[in-house]
Amino acid sequence: MTRKIILDCDPGHDDAIAMLLAHGNPDIDLVAVTTVVGNQTLEKVTRNALSVARIAGITGVPFAAGCPRPLVRAIETAPDIHGETGLDGPVLPEPTLELDRRHAVDLIIDTVMSHEPGEITIVPTAGLTNIALAARKEPRIVERVREVVLMGGGYHEGNWSAVAEFNIIIDPEAAHIVFNESWPVTMVGLDLTHQALATPEVAERIAAVGTKPAKFVGELLDFFGATYKEAQGFEHPPVHDPCAVAYVIDPSVMTVRKAPVDVELTGGLTLGMTVTDFRAPAPADCHTQVAVELDRERFWDLVVDALERIGEIEA
Amino acid sequence: MTRKIILDCDPGHDDAIAMLLAHGNPDIDLVAVTTVVGNQTLEKVTRNALSVARIAGITGVPFAAGCPRPLVRAIETAPDIHGETGLDGPVLPEPTLELDRRHAVDLIIDTVMSHEPGEITIVPTAGLTNIALAARKEPRIVERVREVVLMGGGYHEGNWSAVAEFNIIIDPEAAHIVFNESWPVTMVGLDLTHQALATPEVAERIAAVGTKPAKFVGELLDFFGATYKEAQGFEHPPVHDPCAVAYVIDPSVMTVRKAPVDVELTGGLTLGMTVTDFRAPAPADCHTQVAVELDRERFWDLVVDALERIGEIEA
Amino acid sequence: MTRKIILDCDPGHDDAIAMLLAHGNPDIDLVAVTTVVGNQTLEKVTRNALSVARIAGITGVPFAAGCPRPLVRAIETAPDIHGETGLDGPVLPEPTLELDRRHAVDLIIDTVMSHEPGEITIVPTAGLTNIALAARKEPRIVERVREVVLMGGGYHEGNWSAVAEFNIIIDPEAAHIVFNESWPVTMVGLDLTHQALATPEVAERIAAVGTKPAKFVGELLDFFGATYKEAQGFEHPPVHDPCAVAYVIDPSVMTVRKAPVDVELTGGLTLGMTVTDFRAPAPADCHTQVAVELDRERFWDLVVDALERIGEIEA
Amino acid sequence: MTRKIILDCDPGHDDAIAMLLAHGNPDIDLVAVTTVVGNQTLEKVTRNALSVARIAGITGVPFAAGCPRPLVRAIETAPDIHGETGLDGPVLPEPTLELDRRHAVDLIIDTVMSHEPGEITIVPTAGLTNIALAARKEPRIVERVREVVLMGGGYHEGNWSAVAEFNIIIDPEAAHIVFNESWPVTMVGLDLTHQALATPEVAERIAAVGTKPAKFVGELLDFFGATYKEAQGFEHPPVHDPCAVAYVIDPSVMTVRKAPVDVELTGGLTLGMTVTDFRAPAPADCHTQVAVELDRERFWDLVVDALERIGEIEA
Repeated sequence: MTRKIILDCDPGHDDAIAMLLAHGNPDIDLVAVTTVVGNQTLEKVTRNALSVARIAGITGVPFAAGCPRPLVRAIETAPDIHGETGLDGPVLPEPTLELDRRHAVDLIIDTVMSHEPGEITIVPTAGLTNIALAARKEPRIVERVREVVLMGGGYHEGNWSAVAEFNIIIDPEAAHIVFNESWPVTMVGLDLTHQALATPEVAERIAAVGTKPAKFVGELLDFFGATYKEAQGFEHPPVHDPCAVAYVIDPSVMTVRKAPVDVELTGGLTLGMTVTDFRAPAPADCHTQVAVELDRERFWDLVVDALERIGEIEA
Repeated sequence: MTRKIILDCDPGHDDAIAMLLAHGNPDIDLVAVTTVVGNQTLEKVTRNALSVARIAGITGVPFAAGCPRPLVRAIETAPDIHGETGLDGPVLPEPTLELDRRHAVDLIIDTVMSHEPGEITIVPTAGLTNIALAARKEPRIVERVREVVLMGGGYHEGNWSAVAEFNIIIDPEAAHIVFNESWPVTMVGLDLTHQALATPEVAERIAAVGTKPAKFVGELLDFFGATYKEAQGFEHPPVHDPCAVAYVIDPSVMTVRKAPVDVELTGGLTLGMTVTDFRAPAPADCHTQVAVELDRERFWDLVVDALERIGEIEA
Repeated sequence: MTRKIILDCDPGHDDAIAMLLAHGNPDIDLVAVTTVVGNQTLEKVTRNALSVARIAGITGVPFAAGCPRPLVRAIETAPDIHGETGLDGPVLPEPTLELDRRHAVDLIIDTVMSHEPGEITIVPTAGLTNIALAARKEPRIVERVREVVLMGGGYHEGNWSAVAEFNIIIDPEAAHIVFNESWPVTMVGLDLTHQALATPEVAERIAAVGTKPAKFVGELLDFFGATYKEAQGFEHPPVHDPCAVAYVIDPSVMTVRKAPVDVELTGGLTLGMTVTDFRAPAPADCHTQVAVELDRERFWDLVVDALERIGEIEA
Repeated sequence: MTRKIILDCDPGHDDAIAMLLAHGNPDIDLVAVTTVVGNQTLEKVTRNALSVARIAGITGVPFAAGCPRPLVRAIETAPDIHGETGLDGPVLPEPTLELDRRHAVDLIIDTVMSHEPGEITIVPTAGLTNIALAARKEPRIVERVREVVLMGGGYHEGNWSAVAEFNIIIDPEAAHIVFNESWPVTMVGLDLTHQALATPEVAERIAAVGTKPAKFVGELLDFFGATYKEAQGFEHPPVHDPCAVAYVIDPSVMTVRKAPVDVELTGGLTLGMTVTDFRAPAPADCHTQVAVELDRERFWDLVVDALERIGEIEA
């Protein structure tokens, strides 16, 4: 059975790969793409999303722009990682898709409410501003969504501070809203995504696909690898966002552990930490789980397979 | 020139009086009424708003329900002050108006965007959840709104804690959003509204109007007076919300002082405090001001005058 | 009956005047002077205290140096107000007194424990690091001290932030300790001390005393007046610290109000605020009170009288 | 070369074992034992320390009582783990040692200042109140102490909250002081001590020693094991405190990693967390390190060896 997902993203190099994976994989039905400020400004990431849609050959899917800034905090973007455009490296084509006229928040709400309960999975790979606003504007989506599988946070790892991750710390109040609603939440955090390193072997597999989209991914990884080495000292870049999509495709691609997760809003050193309580077995009603260990081989198989299925695009 | 206002409220005894003042005063054009959780649940305050509309004879004005809970914090209502219905005391008629189908946030956005810049004033007399969400969903309203005149906060007085007021502390993140946007904000806080006490003389003036709406106000003040005495030790109840409407009608009904105001989000003792900096003359670009001293006589004149203009209602 | 006091200070222009008032007034028995980092480094304020002792003719009183830094926070001094020496303006004589060999914390403890219960009043006019450490090291001093009368804080006024005062914000944890111990605490805060302005008339009265100590006070006020005008926009400088001594001499020199006071430790905007709860009559066991209104005339009478009693000093 | 240590403790079952290890091991010269509120009240843990001294045959070592409460927070003890006496289980003998007349803070200061720089190592196995006060009262100890090797905290593990450990969270301000001073700090935290489980094999080895002190340790482990199973779900109890002593005896008994560590003071979910930054190689001037992996075999060898060396005690 295919899984219908809304991808809420801020492309972003790894967001772009997540889009390609979602589009190319036959078990995913991409029903909407929404954008939000994050890796770069809303304007930039929205344009990037549309350009990636053209590269991937995505048509017939509504794309909508959402929030240009976090709920409470000032805007913080990540040019050191994603460059000035948010997708530096490849030359991007002019978008051909037009944006949906709705606000992303309304597209999310409409999509969830117009499908059966349990049909829609939300996959956020950015700050959670859109998702939080949607849950506040239309609380009924919470019980109607099948699950939220998000890239963000970390139970032991941090990147934007010692213990916080970018997608969470840029809008911790939104993250607090999302983690505290009653829907099932799977946190695919840094503990997991730091296992999804694009090694030279991975790059070679992708290059071997030989298509324009694959070449595009190669160029993304070249840029992303350079900035990750420079800014964060990684030998090979962690490709975060597709991990969340991969979990939706096949949960067995990673091990997960049920545990209560909450978001720190006031800590001087820990703002935006996804505080995870492993002290005891998770209570029966625990609705949050965290991704622990990645089956690297199968993960990259999924990515390569998606690229192969997308094939050559005439654009 | 009449002033077009959106009244965002949670009736609530003093909200009801604010509605009557706005409706009865000839200088106010009430273009929309929106409701939000606060004094009681969204369901209750929305029904109350519609019942008050019938009592006041308000027709042709869209009413829309908004957020059923604050942005981040758990719901906190005020049954000790406003009773189990949120408007205990009078017998309320069945509403005759129907709710607008839009969410309050969208009604606010649509109203502001469909009027000329500088035409719409927003008058919140409740927690600021709706207003904050509107500003985040459609940032362009901020420069289009003429001003925000809100009842809430206090620079020296508190009621829900030593230094925080109910409308702010129930959703401090929303208040933080509203005070930090660039629109002009007038804070009609407890320092001012604790001067608007419904003394026996005031009650007599209102009773003397002799209409059903005036009798309704009398019953509101009876109940409100009893709970304020019981719960907060006031000899006579402070009638907060109409003060904000009165300022829009005639700013000279109170003195105001320009000063930077911000909302405390992390204090253990000071959460939700509207921190006001009086240390130096306000900077030239200061967009916030606080109400300081009320001309009590003229304030009550406005209330009584509005009731007289409303006259007898056939309902 | 004379009142035995320990003056814990960081001279500091107004600390120096507080020392002169305590020494010159016949109802005060100055049994110890202790110093602590604050207006300047510990080394500087300690030397200043000894120099002022010589100017005032103080002998036979132990002086001890205390903590060189606050409990938790980094050192913050006030050179903009008190200059590089902490007592800029007058030429200071070489000290003739020698420091007591004990740490200020031990001198405070020894002094309190070697007197009868209820005999010693502590008068802090600086950050509360020494007093807090003394209470933690020897908890029995708390019930043995008669009362703590401190210059610091403010219920409505701030100077180092919108709502916090210097002596409290430089060591909020220490202040939290002092306000939360069970001894009687009188907070002589900015609300009161901003009434103790050294106007030209005051300066003239002091000049008219005609002695070297009076001339020294005049030079202090000249410098202090200039920095207060420059740094904080005051027309005439508020002479904070002697107000606390004045209250010990004669409580009727100011009105006070009982109210719970606590110190904010975590607020982003309100760190170090002395949060005072005026919402209801203070509970019977309330051990804190705040100074409200100064009898200016009698206050300055006390200062001038002390200078006259000190008379001419051969130094 | 023997290592001179001050053991600052709150016995406490594992503190008692730490005392025995320090006393029995020939490479440790126990120069002072100081007590502080923690597992139980100061009075109880101080009496326990003296009783353990008698059981261990410790003589000629000054014991001093320190702080009866944390710096800022209210007292929190651990009766669920250590029982009502703080050392429930064994029958304790009447102490024969007399307490030193000095306060623990002064004994620490005197001991450090009367030895050569670099001679004294401080080993805290309790809340850090005494150590923090000593550093504030006599800042010169900081550069004079060889190192601080403390049991407390954890970089990934928590016990008193999801992310905080008991010794740190009961006095986070004191911990903040200790971690932020410039002395070398080795944090032997839960990540390490949860490897030091007293399995049945360990209990058998200890029983096999056959002496009264060994029997006493066996009784400690019986009680401790039962409460740890009941209160925290451990199959075998983690014996925290001796790990810190073991590190001083032989650093190669565990691996350590240099990393900046700081203590969270304001987090709503993370208060008292020892926030450790592993994102990059520790800077050259990093003075903190954390214990990572225990050589279990050698650790228990050290404990058993110490008990064998202590031998039979006539008490």
